[in-house]
Formats: sequence, structure tokens, C-alpha cells
Amino acid sequence: MTVPPKPEPTGLFERATRRLPVERTPVWFMRQAGRTLPEYRKLRERWTLLQMCADPALCAEVTLQPMRRMPLDAAVMFGDIMLPLVGIGVDLDIVEGVGPVIAHPIRDLAGVAALRDLEPEADVPAAIEAVRLVRAALEPERAVLGFAGAPFTLAAYLVEGRPTRDFAKTKALMLGAPDVWAALMERLVAIVVRFMRANAQAGVSALQLFDSWVGALSVTDYDRHVRPWTQQVFAGLRDLDVPLVHFGTGCSHLLDQMKDDGAHIIGLDWRTPLDEAWARVGHDKGVQGNLDPAALSAPADVVAAAAREVLDRAAGRPGHVFNLGHGMLPHTPLANIERVVEVVQTYRPSTVVTDAMAPAA
Amino acid sequence: MTVPPKPEPTGLFERATRRLPVERTPVWFMRQAGRTLPEYRKLRERWTLLQMCADPALCAEVTLQPMRRMPLDAAVMFGDIMLPLVGIGVDLDIVEGVGPVIAHPIRDLAGVAALRDLEPEADVPAAIEAVRLVRAALEPERAVLGFAGAPFTLAAYLVEGRPTRDFAKTKALMLGAPDVWAALMERLVAIVVRFMRANAQAGVSALQLFDSWVGALSVTDYDRHVRPWTQQVFAGLRDLDVPLVHFGTGCSHLLDQMKDDGAHIIGLDWRTPLDEAWARVGHDKGVQGNLDPAALSAPADVVAAAAREVLDRAAGRPGHVFNLGHGMLPHTPLANIERVVEVVQTYRPSTVVTDAMAPAA
Repeated sequence: MTVPPKPEPTGLFERATRRLPVERTPVWFMRQAGRTLPEYRKLRERWTLLQMCADPALCAEVTLQPMRRMPLDAAVMFGDIMLPLVGIGVDLDIVEGVGPVIAHPIRDLAGVAALRDLEPEADVPAAIEAVRLVRAALEPERAVLGFAGAPFTLAAYLVEGRPTRDFAKTKALMLGAPDVWAALMERLVAIVVRFMRANAQAGVSALQLFDSWVGALSVTDYDRHVRPWTQQVFAGLRDLDVPLVHFGTGCSHLLDQMKDDGAHIIGLDWRTPLDEAWARVGHDKGVQGNLDPAALSAPADVVAAAAREVLDRAAGRPGHVFNLGHGMLPHTPLANIERVVEVVQTYRPSTVVTDAMAPAA
Repeated sequence: MTVPPKPEPTGLFERATRRLPVERTPVWFMRQAGRTLPEYRKLRERWTLLQMCADPALCAEVTLQPMRRMPLDAAVMFGDIMLPLVGIGVDLDIVEGVGPVIAHPIRDLAGVAALRDLEPEADVPAAIEAVRLVRAALEPERAVLGFAGAPFTLAAYLVEGRPTRDFAKTKALMLGAPDVWAALMERLVAIVVRFMRANAQAGVSALQLFDSWVGALSVTDYDRHVRPWTQQVFAGLRDLDVPLVHFGTGCSHLLDQMKDDGAHIIGLDWRTPLDEAWARVGHDKGVQGNLDPAALSAPADVVAAAAREVLDRAAGRPGHVFNLGHGMLPHTPLANIERVVEVVQTYRPSTVVTDAMAPAA
């Protein structure tokens, strides 16, 4: 008796993230669930973001809204990177127009010690239950994507206490109190890994690590003070049969590091042309991206041409997931979003690079 | 009768910016005049930034404050990149904690047409007179640096109306109304060139173009919609006997373009190690930078080590001006700033790369 081989996934997103051939490029958008949709804004009149995240049915509903409106290939769980920290009791608020604001910023070992381990089913039950609801509601060929904030980005919020442009307090701690920094990163790695594993067990098709602020670091500081912890996150997830995506913005200078940190797919922002960035990442890995979200405010034909340019640069290589280079901006015209989906789903590359043609890794 | 050869400059900054040998690396800091100094904050209790900029004596005083306190090699004129626009009548305010706010953002040809040419001596007399005052007050070996905002950065402020993180309106105009964009950039090039030429005539030792926001652009958009105008600015200044510096942040991905846009010296932010960035720029050009301004909030010994690391990477090559990778942050401890100056001025490289040893351009 032989064990039957595991069936190949049929969904386009799942196939592309495993670098299997696809008949067309899958597409989803970071922040597709949220402020651009009138049906979401209507819900937000009644509930705050954290209230919605605490209710599995509401959270699933918001996640599914863009899936009903558009033939997207993946649903990204509605939520916030700070949710696991809220779950373990960090006192924070998501302030409209500002972002997460922490009541007691963490800058010493006592603060780090107060960050207890995450028990996902007890601490973030709504987030995990919402994954099950979304998975059950969606057609099997449409993927569900779970995500978490990367340790550096979470640490930056915890240390600064609010969004910042310069990360002065974070860097001062990182450089000036390396023991506190290491303890903080170690705690965050454990929390992030547990949260992502619980997402996987609840049925997500892929996991994305949002390293939103990592581009503020020099290559040297990333290497010395962040990279080991990022690698630990991916090492803690590699036994799962789930593609792992690593995304950051403004980090073209870190691509040579990030490509080797353990993710299967590198999320690219819009700054570097996709073909050049993919060549640096290596064609043995997938890439996700990279239309400039700000370009979506241009006239529809310009938007369509920009989307086609991304696809031209991907050249039909296996392992490309179409996305924006960062989250959807609040005032993006819906018609432009729908136009991009249509462009991606009707696009046929003039030349297709197959695995066999791709240079060896 | 032969014309006597032009004497070589004796100041360290002037020598380094011309890639002449120096006995030690010159140092100044972006935003060295301003919020970090108590003597500046005292003046600010009585005057707004724009009021100070409108008074040549006050403007010169603020410019000279850090020069009295520290043995810096260059004074950077106190001012704001929006000054030439205020000079031609653009209705704007510099709002505390926000930045420049424009009463009537420019998004069409009529708006562009309202931007008249700059007559520096009539429109920004205080800025030009302040250069003369500073030049007269400073020892001849200490340099005076004039600056202007780059056309893209100025255009972004004019189009958005206020500081932004995403530049959605700017990019929508750039991509969607290329005629308006081109007209706007053309007007701004003319204004910037006139302002910088007037600075040179008044006696500055070097001119720096601040392209603060250019890092938000993709390589493709920079190439198509910005680069030609940046090149025009430098082309309009190359006949002056004044070293030209081009500085942007978050633009490691644009270095291969910027190095060929006409500046003599590329200002580097902190993200890429100085030696790697300089190799990309080419050793036939100078570089300025690139200590992380956020690192200056770390303990003094860590700051000193970080400053030495920058100098180690410069390896004594001709053409390095020590600076931060972006402007000084408001709460930077003064003692740390002074420590960095001391480190730079007492540093001796263990190995020195001379012109002869540098690879051919």
C-alpha cells in the first residue's frame, strides 16, 4: 500500500506561491479589506477597528467584502499587526489618523518582562475564529492569507509609543541597550511565531510577515540587530506546509539580506523594477508586487498601463503574485482597483519564462 | 605676462568637495543651525521661522550659532526650501509640527502659470544678504553652504498642499497630466537655478540640492518624470566655480541615476554603508555623509564608534565630507553632537586611499 501523493493545490494563489505553473497571475491587494470600500466605511460608523477585530463574524465579514465585489484570488485577514500585543494585555489604542498609540512604551527589561507569551486561542480568539469562518465561506480555490507584524516593526511601536518617522528612541535602545533590545526581540519572535502558527492551524493558505518599518534601518543595523530575529520567525514556521512571504517597504538596500532570511516569497515595494528586484532575490524564490499604490489615483488608462508594465517585467515566470507595492491608499478610486484586477486576469505574457529557462539559483 | 594660477582653496571643506587632499575630514551637519541649540530655541520664542528668514541679521545669527559653539568646517545657511516660493508670492505657512502648508495647491496649468520667475535680490533679499553677512563674519577657511529644494520635492509640496507620506496627488498629476507636470517642473527649475546662482554670487562655497522626497519614486518614474529636470538644475549651475551636492533620503535605489545627474558630490543617507555607496557612485565623485541621525540619541561611546565606522569606510579617500545621513533630529543631545565633531577632527585613517590608488572612473 502506498501513501497517495499529496494533491497539487488548484487555486492560483496557492500554485503561484509554490512556484507551480499557473494559467494567469493571481492578484490580491494589501489593505484590500478596509477604507476604500463603502460597505466597510458603513460598518466603521458603528464600530472601532479594535471592536471589529474582537468580533469574529464582523472580522470575517470585512475580510470577505472585497472578495464579493471583485474576483480576487486571495483574501487577507482583516486585522492589525498590533492585535497579538493587545491579546497579551498591552495597553494600546489605534487612534484615527495617527495609528497605534501605546500607553506605556517599553524601554527597559521590566517592560519586556511584562510581555507574556501568547496563547492564541485564549488571547486572540476572534482572529483565529475569523480565519475558520473565512476559510469556510470562500470557494476552495481562493486563498486566505494570514499575517503578523515583524519583530522589528512591533518593537518600534512598543519603544516609540506611537508612529514615528525617525525611530530615534528605537535605535537608541537597539544601539545603547543591546541586552534590553535582544530580550524584547526574543519575546516578540515567540509571540509572532505562535500567532502565525495558530493562523496556519486555522486554515490560512499563506503567511505574510509585515516588516513595514525595516527600511529605516541601515544594512549594518539590520544585520546586527534585526536579522537574527527575523530569521528565527521564519525558522519557527518552516515546518508548516504554508508559503511564507516577507514584505517591507523602502528596503531595496536590504534585499540581499531579506532574500536569505527564510521566506519563500519576497514582497516588493514599488521602488525597484520587478525584474531587477527579482533577479536580486533569485528566481528560485517567488515575488509579490509591485504596483505603486499612489499610481492608482491616476487616470484609469494610466493605471492599466502601469499594471501591465509590472506583468511585463514578471514575464510569466512561475512564482509571481500580483499586488501593490504597499497598502491600498484610503482614497483610491474603486473603478481603478477593479480595472487593475481586470488587467491582471486578462493579461497574457508575450513571452513566458519557464522554470527550465530560469537561471539556476 | 602670464595669468597667475588660481590659488588652491585652503579650507578643508572646500578642498574635500574638490577632491583635493586634506589633513583631516571636514565635518558639518544638516540642520546644525536650529532646534537642537538652546540659543536658537530662545530666539524662536520671539520669532517664527519665516520671520527669522525675512531678517538678514537674524538669519545670519542663527546660521552662525553652531559655528561659535563647535569647530565645524561649514556653515549651512539657515532657511527653508520653501523660501524662494514665498518670495514669488506663494501663500504658504510653515506650521509647527507639520511643515509647509500651501493655501492653494497647484494642480493645473493656471496654477503653474501663477508661479512667476524669481528675482532673488528683490524677492528673497534677506536670504541673499544673510549669505554676505555670514561670509564676512566667518574665518575664510570655514565654508558657507547654500541650498535649495529640488524641483520634485518642491513640486510635491505644491501639489499636495502639505507634507505627505504617500504622494498620491503628486504621482497622479505626474502620471495623469504630464503636460501640467512638465510645466510645473520647468518653472521650478528656473526658480531653483536663479536662487542658487544668487547664493553663489553672494559668496557661498558650495550648493546643495535637497531632494528630500525623491526616494518615494520608483526608478522608472524618476527616470521618466523627474531626472531630466534635476539634470537641468545642475546643468544651469555647472559654469559656476562651486561644488554641487545632490542629497536625497531613502534613495539607494536611485544612486545609479543620481550619480550621473550633474552633481560633484552625492549626499548619502545612512541606509547603505558609505564604502558600498561610494563604489556605486564612483570614486571620481565625492560623497557626503552618512551617520544615522537617530543613532545620535544613543550613549556617547556608541555614537563615537558609529562615527568612526563611517570614517573607516571612507578610508581617507579624497572627496569625503562627514555629515549625518539626514537632518539633525530635534532632541539630539548636544554632548553627542560635540563628541562626533571631536571624533572626526581627531581621526586618522589606518590606511589612506590616494587619488592614484583609486580605480579609474
